[in-house]
Amino acid sequence: MPPKLITLLTDFGLCDGYVGIMKGVILGIAPTVQLVDLAHEVRAQDVPGAALILRSAVPYFPPGSVHLAVVDPGVGSSRAPIAVATDRAYFVGPDNGLLAPAVAVLGGAHGVWRIDSVASPLGAVSQTFHGRDVFAPAAAQLAAGLAPEKIGAPLGSLQQLALPDPRRHTNGVDGEVIYVDRFGNLITNISAADLAAFASRPVSVSIGGVHDMAMVRAYSDAALHDPLAIINSWGLLEVAVREGNAAQLLKGDRGTSVIVSTVGP
Amino acid sequence: MPPKLITLLTDFGLCDGYVGIMKGVILGIAPTVQLVDLAHEVRAQDVPGAALILRSAVPYFPPGSVHLAVVDPGVGSSRAPIAVATDRAYFVGPDNGLLAPAVAVLGGAHGVWRIDSVASPLGAVSQTFHGRDVFAPAAAQLAAGLAPEKIGAPLGSLQQLALPDPRRHTNGVDGEVIYVDRFGNLITNISAADLAAFASRPVSVSIGGVHDMAMVRAYSDAALHDPLAIINSWGLLEVAVREGNAAQLLKGDRGTSVIVSTVGP
Amino acid sequence: MPPKLITLLTDFGLCDGYVGIMKGVILGIAPTVQLVDLAHEVRAQDVPGAALILRSAVPYFPPGSVHLAVVDPGVGSSRAPIAVATDRAYFVGPDNGLLAPAVAVLGGAHGVWRIDSVASPLGAVSQTFHGRDVFAPAAAQLAAGLAPEKIGAPLGSLQQLALPDPRRHTNGVDGEVIYVDRFGNLITNISAADLAAFASRPVSVSIGGVHDMAMVRAYSDAALHDPLAIINSWGLLEVAVREGNAAQLLKGDRGTSVIVSTVGP
Repeated sequence: MPPKLITLLTDFGLCDGYVGIMKGVILGIAPTVQLVDLAHEVRAQDVPGAALILRSAVPYFPPGSVHLAVVDPGVGSSRAPIAVATDRAYFVGPDNGLLAPAVAVLGGAHGVWRIDSVASPLGAVSQTFHGRDVFAPAAAQLAAGLAPEKIGAPLGSLQQLALPDPRRHTNGVDGEVIYVDRFGNLITNISAADLAAFASRPVSVSIGGVHDMAMVRAYSDAALHDPLAIINSWGLLEVAVREGNAAQLLKGDRGTSVIVSTVGP
Repeated sequence: MPPKLITLLTDFGLCDGYVGIMKGVILGIAPTVQLVDLAHEVRAQDVPGAALILRSAVPYFPPGSVHLAVVDPGVGSSRAPIAVATDRAYFVGPDNGLLAPAVAVLGGAHGVWRIDSVASPLGAVSQTFHGRDVFAPAAAQLAAGLAPEKIGAPLGSLQQLALPDPRRHTNGVDGEVIYVDRFGNLITNISAADLAAFASRPVSVSIGGVHDMAMVRAYSDAALHDPLAIINSWGLLEVAVREGNAAQLLKGDRGTSVIVSTVGP
Repeated sequence: MPPKLITLLTDFGLCDGYVGIMKGVILGIAPTVQLVDLAHEVRAQDVPGAALILRSAVPYFPPGSVHLAVVDPGVGSSRAPIAVATDRAYFVGPDNGLLAPAVAVLGGAHGVWRIDSVASPLGAVSQTFHGRDVFAPAAAQLAAGLAPEKIGAPLGSLQQLALPDPRRHTNGVDGEVIYVDRFGNLITNISAADLAAFASRPVSVSIGGVHDMAMVRAYSDAALHDPLAIINSWGLLEVAVREGNAAQLLKGDRGTSVIVSTVGP
């Protein structure tokens, strides 16, 4: 049987040891587990950004994976620490919207539990680091085979995340940038499905002062340093600059309006 | 038997491949070992910062772990490369104070050895990268079962690290910031034990121009963007800003004075 | 038999989840493989820098390793995705020069194949993320035991990388900075072999306005904060500042001229 796999996604960075400590706790409980870092340089306390990363990643992990995500501005407050079961995977994290888009992309939750029956390392729970004291032990226990209903009391549902919806109309779609990646690519909330209605007609894309960008199939179809629009690896419309940084060049950021319009008669 | 675990802590960053090379050397000697990164984005040559990270992490790792730490401004000088045995774990690194606080938190050293009998990869020792040529092979050999006394000649003791002590007095404690984490949290040298003497009396905390911060139990007990004082996950007094960056907002850094005073009669 | 080892080198950073997704794909195909990050904070689209990192690292990995490298400004263009076999290791990545120096340092290629017979995860190939859809599955298949000739059609050769050559003359060597590391160390294209001709004569090193730096054996042989020249862990001449940042202090960067001259009669 292959080793169990736990992914880790946090905003803890890699300068302080917080992620390493979580791994120590996990390996004390489940010594043969495979640990995979999804991302730890998420902007501090950026729940929506981390939720999109998690959603983009989980379909690519093998069945039975446990996804541990901690971006948790409300640590120590009344927000619940939860475990979620789906067809393919378990999720562990704070109930603040972080997990919801990824749970949905895997077909929705079979069960949600409040984590309240898991022993903490060294026998104490801090009020500032539930990643170490609550979430890591819970994820490790699930990977070690604990049934999720032993994790704690069932909850009716999990907190959803408010993401802006694109608006489709007869001659196009109005959307906005929802994520900016390391390369400065501007990822929008407009999906390939949103654009399918216009598949038979040429479209152009506008953002800020830049109009009439063509949709390309590959970055290399645009001229060097030219802006372009493309369906990216998340299945979403992305505004990029070939071998350049669109966020800097086009002064785009989350919330920047992006308009797709059909061209011609 | 679970796989042996080696943690890695360096100031090598993740842009140059230095950490990856150390892992290649380790896995050539101990192919089934579990490798866990503690932190690699430590400030360049910041021995005290790395020593505090190491101390905060080692209690959370399973017995038998090997902790490999390389922040080594004196590489190639007369500072000794050492291995240290404690009850729970081995340590490998330069003898410059980096290991001492973590060794102490695990109960002190049973033995200290100068690493001088370990074969280097490719048969040569550079004078600039002992992480690759000395420390990684030594850590891998210990994880593979080599007795530490085979590593080299015994040493009488290890280099201690000078950390500033807080000063307790009748009506409070004077301390200072000793670490700033990714979130801008200002971690002080004042411990929960230092504050226990005042447990029955309310205290307030001052830093820079900000006075009368209350101690809270959780970040969420403070108002949004307000400064607060809290016992953090290291068991130390921390000045933070709820969903904000205390280092920026309060212009605090290492060495900044922090004063705890009892309130009222 | 020890687990197979795959190294990963990208310019994807650690903020977006792209590296984690590649690992998910790999572990779905080869669940027991050891994954080692070489570097992911390479400058965006910096093929020469990444090629030098890869070359510096591969001699330190055990035989049978698979080296997966993706710095790929031409993703989606006609550049081929390739697999390369050498005596000691396999390589997988884009055919843009990235792999060539590392292949050469391991003794050259026994075979080069265009990756065109590997199933993509979720059955589709994006035009923006071949790391996930082409390279990760190919590397995992090789680690799982697939013969490289099953990967795709053989190619005659692989793309070479143009690196500047140093110029040796009677009284010295003229070279230039080819890499700047995290510490600001300025690594040149002048090798220990280039300097062997002058081994019996003292030499001095000049860069920018700084002349007559002595060659030292270890950083600690220079005075604190003084510039120095040294043969580094890559076997190349490096200009550094003891416990300082040479790139900042000497305003050096890639392309900066470095001159080694014999001293005296």
